[in-house]
Amino acid sequence: MTGLGMPPATDLPSHPRFVSLEGGEGAGKTTVLNALGDALQAEGLEVVRTREPGGTPLAEMIRELLLDPRHEPAAPETELLLMFAARAQHVREVIAPALARGAWVISDRFTDSSHAYQGGGRGLDPGLIAGLERCVVGLQPGLTLLLDIGVSQGRERTRGRDLEFAGGAPDRIEGERDEFFERVRATYRARAAAEPERFRVLDASRPAAEVAAEAVARLQAWRSRA
Amino acid sequence: MTGLGMPPATDLPSHPRFVSLEGGEGAGKTTVLNALGDALQAEGLEVVRTREPGGTPLAEMIRELLLDPRHEPAAPETELLLMFAARAQHVREVIAPALARGAWVISDRFTDSSHAYQGGGRGLDPGLIAGLERCVVGLQPGLTLLLDIGVSQGRERTRGRDLEFAGGAPDRIEGERDEFFERVRATYRARAAAEPERFRVLDASRPAAEVAAEAVARLQAWRSRA
Repeated sequence: MTGLGMPPATDLPSHPRFVSLEGGEGAGKTTVLNALGDALQAEGLEVVRTREPGGTPLAEMIRELLLDPRHEPAAPETELLLMFAARAQHVREVIAPALARGAWVISDRFTDSSHAYQGGGRGLDPGLIAGLERCVVGLQPGLTLLLDIGVSQGRERTRGRDLEFAGGAPDRIEGERDEFFERVRATYRARAAAEPERFRVLDASRPAAEVAAEAVARLQAWRSRA
Repeated sequence: MTGLGMPPATDLPSHPRFVSLEGGEGAGKTTVLNALGDALQAEGLEVVRTREPGGTPLAEMIRELLLDPRHEPAAPETELLLMFAARAQHVREVIAPALARGAWVISDRFTDSSHAYQGGGRGLDPGLIAGLERCVVGLQPGLTLLLDIGVSQGRERTRGRDLEFAGGAPDRIEGERDEFFERVRATYRARAAAEPERFRVLDASRPAAEVAAEAVARLQAWRSRA
């Protein structure tokens, strides 16, 4: 397994109306996504709220395949390529057209998730991931909000949520061990430290409404940057 | 869309008990696969007969997704990544373990199909395809039999076959135009010309039994090479 010999993809074009939310399980991304979308829509702006993996009918079918615990486990490389297949579709069908017509796009997860989960978590070569990012994605969010929360606290919240659904068995990724999620969190934090222009890190251990209010304030501060 | 800056993957390790069959629609790959498998098994050898996209439960589910005409069309990059996701799984779950235990593997299609269909047919960057081949596949067949047939003759055979099934609507790839399949054929022939050690080209316009007999003779000649 060699890298693709590519430099980090930090020089990819970033779009000023494209915001991504990142973070571990139970970090409260849905609440933040709704707060950001509502704040922008209150100004009369068009907002496309989307998520990964998914965002188009085909990409949602890939998501189901990824999270379905019934077939044999996906090899790490298989999981990575499925994530990028869904993302390639999502960018071309939803994100790029929305940005082109002047809308804002807020996505629950984007390429940073692949770096964190398949790179940090599964140990795949960061050069392969950066090569895919460059060749089949080709753009970055202008602003990425990392909702940072301790692994055990985040998983505790997820367990509480799962109990609300009948038979809430953990999916493929939720079934991983704590060490996996510690590597995911460390990768997220390292990426945020390496790209301070794009990332804002929020302490997501606080109540969801408080985190959402800070997220909106961070978005507005970022929009009014010099 | 830039390339991955990788040289052609012709220096990937090739395995002497791994045979792939390539060619357009209606070239008779199934008949040849059975003839090769039967010839090897008649010597008491273990033979794994497989196909792409597919070969494992997850990879077959990816195949269904690829060929399903109900969702929106897959972007070329999405199609390519789904093909390689299925292949990454197929190599790790089926091909590599079979070769490791001493079996022969005969696959109806392998990476050359991605070069021909997604590269030649869809026009995707050959450097991206070669980079994926190197990073997530990592091996080549020792012998590749290209069943070469004119596009119109091959499609005529496929149409005849489709009529045998109820409601035989063409799938995503079968629904392409003739120019697409001409590019696929030209890419196959160029690859065969560039790698004469690995490829044998068979005239598949002849009756299937004749092609199958030549394929077995070519395999045996290849096995007894100096």
